[in-house]
Parts: sequence; C-alpha cells; structure tokens
Amino acid sequence: MRKVEVCFSPELIHLHELKGKIVVVVDIFRATSTMVAALAHGITEIKTFAELEECREMSDQGYLIAGEREGLTAPGFEMGNSPVAYLAGDFAGRKLAMTTTNGTQAIHKSAGAFEILIGAFPNLAATARYIQSLEKDVLIHCAGWKGFFNLEDSLYAGALTKSLESTHVADEDGAMAMKSVFENEGHNLKRFLSQASHAKRIQNHGIEADIDFCLTLDLYDLVGKVENGVLIGITN
Amino acid sequence: MRKVEVCFSPELIHLHELKGKIVVVVDIFRATSTMVAALAHGITEIKTFAELEECREMSDQGYLIAGEREGLTAPGFEMGNSPVAYLAGDFAGRKLAMTTTNGTQAIHKSAGAFEILIGAFPNLAATARYIQSLEKDVLIHCAGWKGFFNLEDSLYAGALTKSLESTHVADEDGAMAMKSVFENEGHNLKRFLSQASHAKRIQNHGIEADIDFCLTLDLYDLVGKVENGVLIGITN
Repeated sequence: MRKVEVCFSPELIHLHELKGKIVVVVDIFRATSTMVAALAHGITEIKTFAELEECREMSDQGYLIAGEREGLTAPGFEMGNSPVAYLAGDFAGRKLAMTTTNGTQAIHKSAGAFEILIGAFPNLAATARYIQSLEKDVLIHCAGWKGFFNLEDSLYAGALTKSLESTHVADEDGAMAMKSVFENEGHNLKRFLSQASHAKRIQNHGIEADIDFCLTLDLYDLVGKVENGVLIGITN
Repeated sequence: MRKVEVCFSPELIHLHELKGKIVVVVDIFRATSTMVAALAHGITEIKTFAELEECREMSDQGYLIAGEREGLTAPGFEMGNSPVAYLAGDFAGRKLAMTTTNGTQAIHKSAGAFEILIGAFPNLAATARYIQSLEKDVLIHCAGWKGFFNLEDSLYAGALTKSLESTHVADEDGAMAMKSVFENEGHNLKRFLSQASHAKRIQNHGIEADIDFCLTLDLYDLVGKVENGVLIGITN
C-alpha cells in the first residue's frame, strides 16, 4: 500500500525524503486556498515568488500581481491574499504572479519532489482522486505560520489522509495524529478553529468571508499542480 | 488564565520564548520515563549529557552510567534506557549520569526557562499538580525522534494540556490539536500507538515491558525537576 506522511513546518522539511513523492503544499489561511480560487476562476497560470520585489516586477510582463505580508495586501500590489476576490471578477486568461508569507516559500522548499500539488479544502476530493490515480507516496507539507505548527494546515493534512485511506496507509505519526483530530473535529472545522489564538489573529483582519471560503469542502473539480515551475489547474 | 503551548521538535524550539515559562521536556520512549523511574526508585540525582564519552567518564566519580543510542545500550555503559531496569534493583542513594538520543538533548535546548521539568505518563498527575501550584505559563517540549514529530510525546502533551485545563487555557494550535487526539485516543494509548510505524520500530527492540511502563498513568507522586543543572525528584 502507498504511504502518506505529514511535515508540520517548512523548517522540518529537510528531514523528509521528497524524491519520488507527491508533495501537497498546504497554506489554508490563505495562500493555497487563494491559488485554487484563482485557477478555478479563469487564471491560467500562477508563478510564485519568495520576495515581494521580484513578484512586483512581473507586472511589466502583463501578470496580475498579488502580494501579501502579515496578512495584508503589500504596497503596490493589485491583489492581496484573499480568495474571495477571485470569485466575482473577470480573470479569464490572465496570468498571476503571487508572493505570500508562508505558502509560496513552502512550495519553493518542496523542490525535488516527483510532483508538487497545492492543497485546499475547496478542492480536497479532487486532489485526493488525482493522487489516487498515481502510484506514489504522498507527503503533505504544511506551510505553518512563521515556522510554527498550525492547526488549519494540519487539519487539512488530517482530512487528506482520511480521504486517501483506501489507498494510502497512514502509519506515520503526524498523519495518524491529524487524521484523529479531523475525525474528531472535522464536522465543524470553523467552530474548532475559532478557539485557536492564531485564528483569532486572522479574524482581526476582518476576513470572515475568506475564512468561510477556505473551510468549504469540494467546490471545484480542479487540481492545482506545479508544472515547469508554474502552477496550473488541471481537471480530473 | 495561564497558557499552555506545545513544541513538537527540538528543531523548532528556537521559535518559542522560554523565558518565564515552565518547560516540560518529554521523551516518552524512553528517556524521561526512565528518569522518572530512576528517581522514584532511589536515584538521588541525574546529570544529563549530550555526548556518550563525557557521560561514560562520570563513572570515575561514582556515578551509575546510562547510555543509549538507536534504542540500545551503548558499549561500556551499565544501564541503557530501560525504565523497568530501575524498578527492581537497589539504587538507593546512587547518582546517575545519563545520555540518550533525543531526550537529554531536548533538556539542554530548554535552557533559559523559568524551570525545566521532565514529563512522563507515570507521574502525569503529580506534574500537573506541581505546575498548577505555580503562576507560570507552560511550554511542553517534545523530544520527538531525530527532529521529527512523534506520536507518544505529542500524546503526552495532549494529556498534560487536558490535565491543566482548569488553570491553563489551551488556545495554542499544537496544544489544541493534541488535546483533541488525547480525548479521542487516550482511553487506549497502547493500541493507538501500536499502529504507528515508529512504535513498530521500537517493538522490534523487544521492549514490550518498557512500553507498558511508559504508558501507565500515575504510579508516582514525584516530580522530576532540573535544579542547578541536575535532575532531582521532588514530592508535592
């Protein structure tokens, strides 16, 4: 049986073997949720950047530019890190350049994997189905928060582990722990997360609609996948 | 209300503020369980060492010496890392010098805390009562396994978080997650842990009796505490 494992912080990713594995990068609040929303609403590809400046320069090449630091839209950027901003606008055919605090950096640190996917609750089932179509082990790479374990990314790890249980054995400690938490708390993710101090910090930014979106399951059939250095959406 | 937080790996401890906090170091299989057993069975103090050689030299000063690497007794040492080895022998009045793969190194990395305790299931309630007698926040520092998250240390973190819930708010993400796992799985720790690949590795060493001991709650009233660089047992 294939295997699933979880890494809770980009600061621990060096401990894990990436080679030959599908790495699913997760930054639920909000980078990977935003990426999935963007790809589902017309954006054709996303380039990710670790630094603000190199991302901002992509504007000259016709890219829509999205930049976030400390949860807020960075100066000089058209878009921040809000997924709901992509739900209504007209982005058909546009390319997006994006940088965020934790999410894009976790993608960069996943280099060397067989394949890199981005995970979010709105395309959980589609991602699980896609993974199950490949004969590979899976590593779920939680972007965390400034290196810390975080609950929303880890809960996604538990949810994906659960979704894969017919094909991927979860005997790795992190996968086992978070599958248990998801089984316990998954029926009301928002209420559970609202008790976390980290979630309280995020709520102070007035992004209630974003949070609702980020915790909604299976809105899209699309899978977010890194191909030749850019992120694209594919459908199963 | 006081706070409780969890660090899942010594490789992440630099992210946490230690100052002013009680740090509880946990290495369930088996360093901190062994320390508690030793202190409960006559050992008067334990000095911990990161390196084998400096630990071995303590024999010249009359110390009983305990050394473990990769789960086995290291060459030239009287004791390995087996807690049950302390249950029957006569250790009254002896001092112990000890080095283990993960546990002692996590103690060393906890320097700077208000106080350092060592945590184990056999003295969980005593440790919780002692903590509740002090007006301090708590950081549970899981020794993990070679830098990785591990399930047994994290479950102890969940158990201690649960034991402290009347005095310490658990709104930090790691504490919340592991409290949930403990609430879910704590009624049969051994069965839950036996599904983990890490536990399977340990079982291959033939330490079934050790595992049973390490997962037994509240055998002792003793609290393990670092004082002036050595570990001593105090009773509430």
